[in-house]
Amino acid sequence: MQIDLNADLAEGYGPWTMGDDAALLDVLSSANIACGFHAGDPLIMDRTVKAALARGVDIGAHVGFPDRQGFGRRPMQIDAAELAAMVTYQLGALEGIARSAGHRMTHMSFHGALGNMAAADSSVARPLVEAVARFDKRLIIVSSTSRAIEGAAAQSDMRVATSFLADRAYDETGLLVPRQLPNSVIHDEAIVLERVRLLLREGIVLTYDGQKLPMRPKSILLHGDTPGALALACSIRTEVEAAGGRVTPISRLMAGSHHET
Amino acid sequence: MQIDLNADLAEGYGPWTMGDDAALLDVLSSANIACGFHAGDPLIMDRTVKAALARGVDIGAHVGFPDRQGFGRRPMQIDAAELAAMVTYQLGALEGIARSAGHRMTHMSFHGALGNMAAADSSVARPLVEAVARFDKRLIIVSSTSRAIEGAAAQSDMRVATSFLADRAYDETGLLVPRQLPNSVIHDEAIVLERVRLLLREGIVLTYDGQKLPMRPKSILLHGDTPGALALACSIRTEVEAAGGRVTPISRLMAGSHHET
Amino acid sequence: MQIDLNADLAEGYGPWTMGDDAALLDVLSSANIACGFHAGDPLIMDRTVKAALARGVDIGAHVGFPDRQGFGRRPMQIDAAELAAMVTYQLGALEGIARSAGHRMTHMSFHGALGNMAAADSSVARPLVEAVARFDKRLIIVSSTSRAIEGAAAQSDMRVATSFLADRAYDETGLLVPRQLPNSVIHDEAIVLERVRLLLREGIVLTYDGQKLPMRPKSILLHGDTPGALALACSIRTEVEAAGGRVTPISRLMAGSHHET
Amino acid sequence: MQIDLNADLAEGYGPWTMGDDAALLDVLSSANIACGFHAGDPLIMDRTVKAALARGVDIGAHVGFPDRQGFGRRPMQIDAAELAAMVTYQLGALEGIARSAGHRMTHMSFHGALGNMAAADSSVARPLVEAVARFDKRLIIVSSTSRAIEGAAAQSDMRVATSFLADRAYDETGLLVPRQLPNSVIHDEAIVLERVRLLLREGIVLTYDGQKLPMRPKSILLHGDTPGALALACSIRTEVEAAGGRVTPISRLMAGSHHET
Repeated sequence: MQIDLNADLAEGYGPWTMGDDAALLDVLSSANIACGFHAGDPLIMDRTVKAALARGVDIGAHVGFPDRQGFGRRPMQIDAAELAAMVTYQLGALEGIARSAGHRMTHMSFHGALGNMAAADSSVARPLVEAVARFDKRLIIVSSTSRAIEGAAAQSDMRVATSFLADRAYDETGLLVPRQLPNSVIHDEAIVLERVRLLLREGIVLTYDGQKLPMRPKSILLHGDTPGALALACSIRTEVEAAGGRVTPISRLMAGSHHET
Repeated sequence: MQIDLNADLAEGYGPWTMGDDAALLDVLSSANIACGFHAGDPLIMDRTVKAALARGVDIGAHVGFPDRQGFGRRPMQIDAAELAAMVTYQLGALEGIARSAGHRMTHMSFHGALGNMAAADSSVARPLVEAVARFDKRLIIVSSTSRAIEGAAAQSDMRVATSFLADRAYDETGLLVPRQLPNSVIHDEAIVLERVRLLLREGIVLTYDGQKLPMRPKSILLHGDTPGALALACSIRTEVEAAGGRVTPISRLMAGSHHET
Repeated sequence: MQIDLNADLAEGYGPWTMGDDAALLDVLSSANIACGFHAGDPLIMDRTVKAALARGVDIGAHVGFPDRQGFGRRPMQIDAAELAAMVTYQLGALEGIARSAGHRMTHMSFHGALGNMAAADSSVARPLVEAVARFDKRLIIVSSTSRAIEGAAAQSDMRVATSFLADRAYDETGLLVPRQLPNSVIHDEAIVLERVRLLLREGIVLTYDGQKLPMRPKSILLHGDTPGALALACSIRTEVEAAGGRVTPISRLMAGSHHET
Repeated sequence: MQIDLNADLAEGYGPWTMGDDAALLDVLSSANIACGFHAGDPLIMDRTVKAALARGVDIGAHVGFPDRQGFGRRPMQIDAAELAAMVTYQLGALEGIARSAGHRMTHMSFHGALGNMAAADSSVARPLVEAVARFDKRLIIVSSTSRAIEGAAAQSDMRVATSFLADRAYDETGLLVPRQLPNSVIHDEAIVLERVRLLLREGIVLTYDGQKLPMRPKSILLHGDTPGALALACSIRTEVEAAGGRVTPISRLMAGSHHET
């Protein structure tokens, strides 16, 4: 069994830091890099890309709303054409930084409120995914389970890698329970680890109201800004390896699939 | 005689416009596109790139300081590594938008205070030009006459296309006279045209204090935000063609030089 | 008959202008000043306040979402406590500039999407109006007809001056028809003037679907960014005076009401 | 002996925090609140002001350059009139938040590069101090030793409270040694404490090159973002009290001086 272990990195801004990116990069196989809209700036992006390259960690663009103050977590209503241009801008910015550093961007994902809106609504997902496809068809879209995104990706002939958010509650359709609801974010490391174990062994996630939801993700996503993120990452890695599995960068996991040449 | 006619476009932001980009694109052969730092946003960039593509106009990245309120015209002291990352970010963003639209970025130039500082100081020019070289060695650097930028480009094995700013006063070393000084910006269209004529016929620019400065530019730069910019562009185009010349995109002018394959 | 004539001013930002503020100030009796969130910056605010003072024009804070790129017209979901702090911040910023210039802030209004959300929803209106009341109970809240805002103001013991948006379509409850709908913004100056006439003479507004809606506004609001705004303002002023009325600053119109001491 | 103990607070932004403001507020007598330009946002300002009020801590506006990414530490060249308007805007914003919370702004200081430029250059200091005077003559200007600021304040008939930056090196004229130079920021808590002791007992600061500089500050300034800031604050407080002194808010220390009515 192989699985990717990834996290959202480069979420600082100017003088402000978030999470211990350097330490996490030693444990992860892939990193989602904030691109300067909801978090991140050129210097932090550049440093994180170089650190990822030095450790053989895959990088992808973590694309969000233009709202630093709200960390991209506040829903905004933006016209599809403008939103698509914002996606392309962020993808290009990270690709430029990656190429200049000698690294390569392999995937992308949608952050925060943008991700939630795309996951829940095909009319949002479609123009966003089309923008990604116009930019580079070979990019892997990393997403939590979402028929909207999977459908849009299929239409655009793009690959999706399903990601399991170990510390987030799911509803019975596979969508994330909104952050505002109680217990939607799971802070107890033991419970999070137990969820990972259940997933790895049985391919099952227990939903918010206790039902069994089958899931076969390619990737486990950690939140770098959670206090115990690093310890959790190490534990999950140990867990995967104990189960005889191997933590593997997302691009290698998907290497067999189409578009990779 | 062939010469490029270009201008700084996409300098609006959100609800705000600057200059008549659509009309100018009918007259120009190249456009410098603001990349969202001193001006511009993803949507305006996308529209301008598509309009340029439709008219066969070359596009380049117009890279500036992160200061919209000051329109990138206020000197800022930023560490070289951070400034280099900002340059790469902007280049990447425009390249992403260009590629997604089916267009191609052929050149770049430095805007406002960043351009002035780079033109006057090798220690600023060098890391900036190196950042451009790491991003893409084939890009043409469009710059007013500057030994600092020409020297840095030579070291990085990159091409420079000298640009003549028809409405700006020059000192005897070929540097632009700062905007704060009286008569540093020439508003009288007749005088601007006369300067273009003198340049085209004799290869000479009259400096701020009346000396003759020899110059053989590849490109004439207009300021899109000047009120009479469009009329001026038409007049210059007529002038060039009356003198038996042809307005030609910068990439074609430089096509014989190295790096173009 | 006395009525206030006002418009949204200081909507430029940095190098960008919007509308002809100087000319409008000669015709208006009150101005709503953008406070740097959706538009405006300290320098433009300062200049507009001084120009208003020189002409005896009332000033008020035009408070909006923190979204320049979207001009405050994109709905955002922001927690009530944070939104209230944003309102207070903007009110304070303008008051500081007004006091330093020797002027006095007499009123405030909510801009764009923030205004629409507050007008339509008491749960949004209440914390916003409470924030205004905590800041200064004597401020007049200028608003298009809205039970939500009028109710919140009554609860906070504050005064509301109803404003008539001459170039915007109304639904039968007195709310503005969303900008996205066709004909929600009336561009034909003759029709706009006819609507003003009907209002002044009969106290009636024709709604989007042709019904007669009674309205007794204290103020007529113009959009400074509309191309014909200036001519329209002059025409309305002439119209008011032809009908024997007088254009009067909002603070004088409301001087008899409570809170003014 | 009475002395004020203050620190720069509210230096977070959106999701990002800086320093342990809540803990520091238990030790300080005054706080300088970032006003949203170089750091801070309305919500953080509001929370910090309320926390200060609850503990009887004085608040002042910490006014900086409009450069969050550079934390206001990058020199910028901004015209005096625009800079003055930026100062007024920030002062007003904090005053609005303070008044709405039932607190009162007693002082102000200039942050980072703005502070350094004003301290070193009368032509910068004068329009800034005049802006503060126009806003409110009763405000106390808190500043490290600077003839430029003291002179400007005298001309504007305003009070200055000299502040001692315990962890920063001084040159022989009393100006701060620039942060870029080695050892300009003193990280060793023992040395910082020793400097405080020397100041309290003998009124002397040892300069960067070892000379004795006499200084009689009203206030000791801590940097809230320094890792050991809290422990240091406690130690200094203990030190002051051990020497028979009392930590006293700046407004009470200056209460006898003119302008306070």
